[in-house]
Amino acid sequence: MTHNFGAGPCILPQEVFKQASQAVLEFNGTGLSILEISHRTPEFEAVVDETVRLVKELLNVPEGYSVVLLQGGASLQFAMVPMNLLAEGETAAYLNTGVWATKALKEAKIFGNVNVVASSKDDNFTFIPKDFEIPSDSAYFHYTSNNTIYGTELMTVPETSVPVVCDMSSDIFSRVIDVSQFSLIYAGAQKNMGPAGLTLAIVKDEILGKIDRKIPSMLDYKVQIDGGSMYNTPPVFAIYVSMLNLRWLKSKGGVAEIEKENISKSEALYKEIDRNPLFKGTCSIEDRSRMNVCFVMENPELEKPFLKFAEDRDIIGIKGHRSVGGFRASMYNALPITSVHTLIDAMQEFAEKHR
Amino acid sequence: MTHNFGAGPCILPQEVFKQASQAVLEFNGTGLSILEISHRTPEFEAVVDETVRLVKELLNVPEGYSVVLLQGGASLQFAMVPMNLLAEGETAAYLNTGVWATKALKEAKIFGNVNVVASSKDDNFTFIPKDFEIPSDSAYFHYTSNNTIYGTELMTVPETSVPVVCDMSSDIFSRVIDVSQFSLIYAGAQKNMGPAGLTLAIVKDEILGKIDRKIPSMLDYKVQIDGGSMYNTPPVFAIYVSMLNLRWLKSKGGVAEIEKENISKSEALYKEIDRNPLFKGTCSIEDRSRMNVCFVMENPELEKPFLKFAEDRDIIGIKGHRSVGGFRASMYNALPITSVHTLIDAMQEFAEKHR
Repeated sequence: MTHNFGAGPCILPQEVFKQASQAVLEFNGTGLSILEISHRTPEFEAVVDETVRLVKELLNVPEGYSVVLLQGGASLQFAMVPMNLLAEGETAAYLNTGVWATKALKEAKIFGNVNVVASSKDDNFTFIPKDFEIPSDSAYFHYTSNNTIYGTELMTVPETSVPVVCDMSSDIFSRVIDVSQFSLIYAGAQKNMGPAGLTLAIVKDEILGKIDRKIPSMLDYKVQIDGGSMYNTPPVFAIYVSMLNLRWLKSKGGVAEIEKENISKSEALYKEIDRNPLFKGTCSIEDRSRMNVCFVMENPELEKPFLKFAEDRDIIGIKGHRSVGGFRASMYNALPITSVHTLIDAMQEFAEKHR
Repeated sequence: MTHNFGAGPCILPQEVFKQASQAVLEFNGTGLSILEISHRTPEFEAVVDETVRLVKELLNVPEGYSVVLLQGGASLQFAMVPMNLLAEGETAAYLNTGVWATKALKEAKIFGNVNVVASSKDDNFTFIPKDFEIPSDSAYFHYTSNNTIYGTELMTVPETSVPVVCDMSSDIFSRVIDVSQFSLIYAGAQKNMGPAGLTLAIVKDEILGKIDRKIPSMLDYKVQIDGGSMYNTPPVFAIYVSMLNLRWLKSKGGVAEIEKENISKSEALYKEIDRNPLFKGTCSIEDRSRMNVCFVMENPELEKPFLKFAEDRDIIGIKGHRSVGGFRASMYNALPITSVHTLIDAMQEFAEKHR
């Protein structure tokens, strides 16, 4: 068994792979592959409907919000958000907690003014800034809830009277959230929702249609919502696999149950990092991410040997991002706790050998 | 065996389904599903490289052009083209041959002026306009080479001195083209290239970087090309299946060979439509598409019974688009000629019964 700690695209449940593999041969008794069916068939419309319904159910999305399935990843949302919500001359507030937040605010500058309310850039994003002011005349406040590269996560929504926009690409569906605290949530699917090639947006309907700019149809949330996520041909297979994965999550007891597992998994690994004299965490303890656990070795010369030691135990995907170095163990919903224990065991065995 | 005449997403080769199904379980000896591998692994980078190489080889793409894999379908290209190529105040020439061309020119109006050089709208797009002038000061000339809804196809590139941009979504890889006649070709993958969720663009490098507009990174051809189709997480599975499908096309002898088959298939069906007293074609004979064959019945009351008659023979996807009515038999590369003969047989049997 391979222990896939990759940062994304990432592990999904084995039963989802099995069902998806079967649907590529034959989908739902149609005699056709899921790859050759029309998106306008009742069979596929049912897939879109169920996917949207599962998102609403699992995240307890209140009335007044639309769930829409898009393409282009979070990177396209970096532009779509200001294109739809930031008029020329207006200012949006951005919290800078890493590479993705930096990219998001750079795109926003094309459409209006950006006020970076706080940044941990000077400390290589090792913490989440806490004391900052969000001016009440901001068009919106944007932040990234989980920073995959640095292993930090913001679990509480900063208090503000302005609309909150959040990039939840790497922690959506991993913990209970209160959607009513947000005006717009977006996420690339390829962590806890499904495979690469799909993007989720949850939009408070009342924030749309307030600016004058002419928006290309494909980039207009309103057009996409009115089109029922099928303004044009959607990424059929990515939606289908996401539906299977959300069904799996529901069968596991939903987000509250998976959150408990995610807490157990991350606590176990952080405990080992803090206990084991060979390893140390890279970011401030109170901001540690449950999804991406970043750590280095006290003696950097042991990092390569440990990587090899882990690989020999079928532990893959733990090499840290180049801007942090060391290791990053990504532990998304589908990663079994046995994989975490395998990694912890490897750290302990390695420490025995090198004490 | 199901005979899938669907307009798209459409039939792909059975061996592609088998290989894709297997890769969802395990990809290329990695011990991982294609759905859980990182796009930054050497194994997947090889997939992107081979896909791009196959596009270049199969279409004989000359030096000076970049092949790039994107998301969002042709509908997003409708906006990306003018965003990248049409400065404010400039005028682009558009040929209006149907719904997709109409949508393309509507998006262009957001960015500059549009000159509709000819349109067959008043005749419900039953023909391709022939005599039109493309002003030499146009920023570019845009047309749709194949019109899926109306069953018309433009096989020759209109003569002009301005850069030619072509939406080839529904006939790319179906016939030999001379890429050097174009400055930009784009296509949603979901006909002859692969599954839904991927978009292909072939861009003449020299046309880029000529306008001042600030372009969001994801919508900037230059950024996407420089990022090697991986500026952000690409649609991994859709690229993989496209690679398999292009491999299949190469193994069949390439585009020139498949074009012969496409000629045989379409000639056989048009011949039956013209011969059979119950049926008639809907568009002008010289503009008939090889990909989408549109026809109606002399007696419209027989259309429902014939649809049922065909379905009983496992012929599916032939219901015409609501704006034309009747029938549309889409015959993409992967549709076997035996399926075409099955349809022709059904038409003949039905005519016997109803003569």
